[in-house]
Amino acid sequence: MSAPFVHEFRVRWGECDPQGIVFNAHYVAYFDEAIVALWREAFDSPYGEMVDEEGIDMVVAEVNVQYRASARPEEMIRVELTVEALGETSMTSRLDVMRGEELLVEGRMRHVFVDTASWTKTPIRDRIRAGLEPYHAYA
Amino acid sequence: MSAPFVHEFRVRWGECDPQGIVFNAHYVAYFDEAIVALWREAFDSPYGEMVDEEGIDMVVAEVNVQYRASARPEEMIRVELTVEALGETSMTSRLDVMRGEELLVEGRMRHVFVDTASWTKTPIRDRIRAGLEPYHAYA
Amino acid sequence: MSAPFVHEFRVRWGECDPQGIVFNAHYVAYFDEAIVALWREAFDSPYGEMVDEEGIDMVVAEVNVQYRASARPEEMIRVELTVEALGETSMTSRLDVMRGEELLVEGRMRHVFVDTASWTKTPIRDRIRAGLEPYHAYA
Amino acid sequence: MSAPFVHEFRVRWGECDPQGIVFNAHYVAYFDEAIVALWREAFDSPYGEMVDEEGIDMVVAEVNVQYRASARPEEMIRVELTVEALGETSMTSRLDVMRGEELLVEGRMRHVFVDTASWTKTPIRDRIRAGLEPYHAYA
Repeated sequence: MSAPFVHEFRVRWGECDPQGIVFNAHYVAYFDEAIVALWREAFDSPYGEMVDEEGIDMVVAEVNVQYRASARPEEMIRVELTVEALGETSMTSRLDVMRGEELLVEGRMRHVFVDTASWTKTPIRDRIRAGLEPYHAYA
Repeated sequence: MSAPFVHEFRVRWGECDPQGIVFNAHYVAYFDEAIVALWREAFDSPYGEMVDEEGIDMVVAEVNVQYRASARPEEMIRVELTVEALGETSMTSRLDVMRGEELLVEGRMRHVFVDTASWTKTPIRDRIRAGLEPYHAYA
Repeated sequence: MSAPFVHEFRVRWGECDPQGIVFNAHYVAYFDEAIVALWREAFDSPYGEMVDEEGIDMVVAEVNVQYRASARPEEMIRVELTVEALGETSMTSRLDVMRGEELLVEGRMRHVFVDTASWTKTPIRDRIRAGLEPYHAYA
Repeated sequence: MSAPFVHEFRVRWGECDPQGIVFNAHYVAYFDEAIVALWREAFDSPYGEMVDEEGIDMVVAEVNVQYRASARPEEMIRVELTVEALGETSMTSRLDVMRGEELLVEGRMRHVFVDTASWTKTPIRDRIRAGLEPYHAYA
């Protein structure tokens, strides 16, 4: 049984636009932060250590966002992140932005692992695969 | 025959992240700016006039971004925007981010027109439909 | 005796620039967030309630930032906020950005209270003055 | 006789906050962009070339912003930049944000030149000094 990784935070005024709600592009930044936070929890070290010490980084290949409702300044919201697929070199995540029990935004992101020397695709290491397993939802 | 609307601009340093490239979330902000720029050209007035004078606004319902290559600080890039579909209350746009002849990022966005009094869906006005026609690509 | 209000948070990747450090403009956004967080603690309600229910808002009149050292992605840093002066219609705050015992950035901000109907200066209400008193450092 | 360097641009919706005006922190980002734009004009090459080819970068040491009036979405505004002082290792700039003949925001920034190998202060090169001379206002 897997459970999603939960990243909770408060909406900042500067993230909101003249409509009084979170600027649409900002949800992708929230997703990015959730991925980095997942790394800290799953591997008990900053994301940057993987980059600096192993020469491995991730780049975003695709993101999809469906907007259902809006978050407002100072509201506590959270990203619930589930790893949906771990391929040879790529990871697909589902990212739900929740306010209480309400689904505000539904996202999907595909990351590709790259070698920082050649900046080309590289297989997901076993260490990474094992660390992500608890967040991996099998259909 | 339609031609895409072109919004050209220079990448800012503050839009780039420690990887030295445009932060992934920022492309969605570029899309947003391109839509607003399209409005200025198509209707010869600021986007905000539609909101203030007609009580009509657009909200983003969905965005999809496929990242193929990266833009770097100070590069001139452009969004080529084509209206793919105009429904009863929604508009779907294709947004290609280009650097010269290279396709960097391919996007799609669906906006829904809303009445700012009730904040519910409202039909696309004939005036809007006519103004967008030159950018409407039929399959 | 007063103690500073402390707002602690983690630096996000998307807040950092190609130099690998927090983009300089972003510290002003951190200051803004610290002020809003102070409001929540001092008045036990969101900042937006003052705006909506009392028709009072604050606008920034001046900000000064001195950069001494840089924060990096994922580091835990904090803003230590002290109210330095409460005038008839304005508040001056000192905002130190700290990483452990190291002072990274030293800021000062002056806010002016405004009436949201006329958007002109308005005296600081007694309720506000009393709530800010615990964070008020007298020279 | 010197004339200021002028960097003109349109305010983006995503740069504005729920007050309907440019978010206060964003003016510092505008300043940063103006400095980079000055470099392109003064040296006829991207700012990044100085970093990559000469191993010299600038870091912000201090910024001061006085807010007088607000810019709104889609308005055309400009930064008028004058170099006020060129020291041994630092440059002080005055940056006025104008809308037509109205001064919206008055800024001052001090940058320090650093060697990117040691990340310590380095003297301003003669080439840089000469290129900035046309924008240097002597009291």
